Amino acid sequence: MSAPPHEARPGVTGARLADTQHGMRRRNLARVMHTVAAHGPLSRASVASRIGLTRAAVSTLVDELTRSGLLEELGPERPGRVGRPGSALAVSARGPVGIGAEVGVDHLSVCAVDLRGDVRARAGRAVGNRGRPPEPVLADLAELIGQVVREAEREGLRPAGLAVAVPGLVARDSHTVVRAPNLDWHRTDVGALLPVELPLTVDNEANFGARAELWLGEGVPDDFLHVSAEVGIGAALVVDGLLLRGSRGFAGELGHVPVRPDGPACPCGGRGCLEQYAGEEAVLRAAGLRQGPDRVGLLVERAADGDEKVRQALRDAGTALGIALTGAVNLLDPRTVVLGGALSRLAPWLIPSLEEELGRRTAGRGCSVTVSRIGSDGPVLGAAHSVVRAVLDDPAGAV
Amino acid sequence: MSAPPHEARPGVTGARLADTQHGMRRRNLARVMHTVAAHGPLSRASVASRIGLTRAAVSTLVDELTRSGLLEELGPERPGRVGRPGSALAVSARGPVGIGAEVGVDHLSVCAVDLRGDVRARAGRAVGNRGRPPEPVLADLAELIGQVVREAEREGLRPAGLAVAVPGLVARDSHTVVRAPNLDWHRTDVGALLPVELPLTVDNEANFGARAELWLGEGVPDDFLHVSAEVGIGAALVVDGLLLRGSRGFAGELGHVPVRPDGPACPCGGRGCLEQYAGEEAVLRAAGLRQGPDRVGLLVERAADGDEKVRQALRDAGTALGIALTGAVNLLDPRTVVLGGALSRLAPWLIPSLEEELGRRTAGRGCSVTVSRIGSDGPVLGAAHSVVRAVLDDPAGAV
Repeated sequence: MSAPPHEARPGVTGARLADTQHGMRRRNLARVMHTVAAHGPLSRASVASRIGLTRAAVSTLVDELTRSGLLEELGPERPGRVGRPGSALAVSARGPVGIGAEVGVDHLSVCAVDLRGDVRARAGRAVGNRGRPPEPVLADLAELIGQVVREAEREGLRPAGLAVAVPGLVARDSHTVVRAPNLDWHRTDVGALLPVELPLTVDNEANFGARAELWLGEGVPDDFLHVSAEVGIGAALVVDGLLLRGSRGFAGELGHVPVRPDGPACPCGGRGCLEQYAGEEAVLRAAGLRQGPDRVGLLVERAADGDEKVRQALRDAGTALGIALTGAVNLLDPRTVVLGGALSRLAPWLIPSLEEELGRRTAGRGCSVTVSRIGSDGPVLGAAHSVVRAVLDDPAGAV
Repeated sequence: MSAPPHEARPGVTGARLADTQHGMRRRNLARVMHTVAAHGPLSRASVASRIGLTRAAVSTLVDELTRSGLLEELGPERPGRVGRPGSALAVSARGPVGIGAEVGVDHLSVCAVDLRGDVRARAGRAVGNRGRPPEPVLADLAELIGQVVREAEREGLRPAGLAVAVPGLVARDSHTVVRAPNLDWHRTDVGALLPVELPLTVDNEANFGARAELWLGEGVPDDFLHVSAEVGIGAALVVDGLLLRGSRGFAGELGHVPVRPDGPACPCGGRGCLEQYAGEEAVLRAAGLRQGPDRVGLLVERAADGDEKVRQALRDAGTALGIALTGAVNLLDPRTVVLGGALSRLAPWLIPSLEEELGRRTAGRGCSVTVSRIGSDGPVLGAAHSVVRAVLDDPAGAV
């Protein structure tokens, strides 16, 4: 986590003034990095005019960022521009990378993303993690992380941090998975069990998925509800570009919103929760299919083949999603609902009944429903990008 | 709305630097005002040490605030302190006041609150507003506002702005009530219809009620869900001390969260919404009582007298609230749920079944339920205090 920005204050005494100047330098380094990352390649003069600093001030900042390997010079800008050509600056393709990792119920996945947002290395493994103790799962994950880190280092990249996505509740600002019912983990300290020497973040997969959507999705607004599913159903609300975490970090548990209050008992302690109608197990059961590898793929295949029992199961799941989302839309008023993760693959068969139910119940005050193009890679990409964002937000801290 | 704080930036050119210095002065005036409001009476030296500015800088700011009538000198501090006694500063009891007004379904209410938070004038009227066109309702309200403004002015106070609470959806950053089903208002521009010459804010009553709770409630945390009822049921989520408004300003519609998806049709277009079980009309019907004046008072009286039909109706309403709040707690993870407005008077008979239902469905991840001490005055007090807060946040703008 980067420190909050310092305020400049006239009339403060010595130590505070130094602190303030230091804070301003850090903030200006971040502004240069974000500007070049979003709009580069750019000349020093273009950076200066975009952020309202003098060219001299920008040159000092750029020199520091170039020395630390965060920016690089691409040589003279292409001709045809007015004035003396400057050397174009770009975010370095050889600097820090963010390592993202995901513990899924059926897979482990790791990737390295550079400051330009390109995936530079990846590794993954299909493995049934349900009911396995955390130790061997995290040992396997550490092995994949090691592979990705070595591959990145061979390319001259430097891992700046690790972010791990898990399908469960993570206590706010901690590395502890409080509950992950679909893994059967309780109070698992990922930091203590993962033998990796990198600055660590642990968060719910839906939270990382939503941030991937925010950062990588096309045409995604700053206010949306991201709904994703693997075995369970999670959601994450983004407000003005920021994630709503809840007081303990447990916000977004859409899967346990009651759909029919007298419905089937749920392992969470409730009855008739959304997961009892639209969770993977419930849909497989209603479709008359068995557990097995790539169950979502099987549902997609059968639905595409016209299997009416599967299609009806997905229609009913869409209706249940529409009821739960009616509650969410009334409470949260997002600009749009984005279906991500496994839901994006199943969207063609879920959306008609979902939209009908939501539209009927929220006439005139509802919101649109869209499908993520990122799909099931969202959590691992969001995790890696969250490390990259932290570097852009505080380049001085990454040096 | 106050302008966002400016950042101080080294190396910016002339106009921007002036803008920046101006921004810092405004910010520092606000810091002095908030410090004195929260902790006063204070000497200049105490203010300086609390906010980390020099005593000379604080003196300049204080002089400006005293000249504009926002701060006043109380004379020398009481003895027994170390050093030379300074004159104690307090927020002025003769400066600006905020005017708050509420359009209720059965009442109109107006008050004036000074910078110290004291109510200095009030006026109200019991009147059935359901189905009345907005014009006469707002003409009546303007008359009450005129009374309160004149009373405040007789005491040497200066109205700084007017905030109006309405029981309906208000489009974000506008004066337009998009829908107020319990008044039967649609697309009503309160600004155009209210003949009052004061800076105006219009917002949902639940939003003002929640802010009253945040500012005036005792021991209320920074993260909570405030649930209130008059005829309808509204809620407002406060996160880190800020209100979650939703992309269009429509967040918090707890009354239209589905409780039983196949339940009775709701005027909103949905079925089985919370209001169909716990709204005032539904409870009166279940209790076998008729519409009439002070219906909540009647419910309280009968329940206190042991009327079993009324008590059962309130128990059932509590159960429905528990189901809807299960959804809200799963989605939002507030630290606590505060029952305000009419719900605070009915709380003794609602809470047992509400807590049972919520506790059972959210085992181990639920949240506490508390009752507001502010009760049905919340919206009008929250409205008046929101004007006061705007003065404290930008004292330069109020001069």
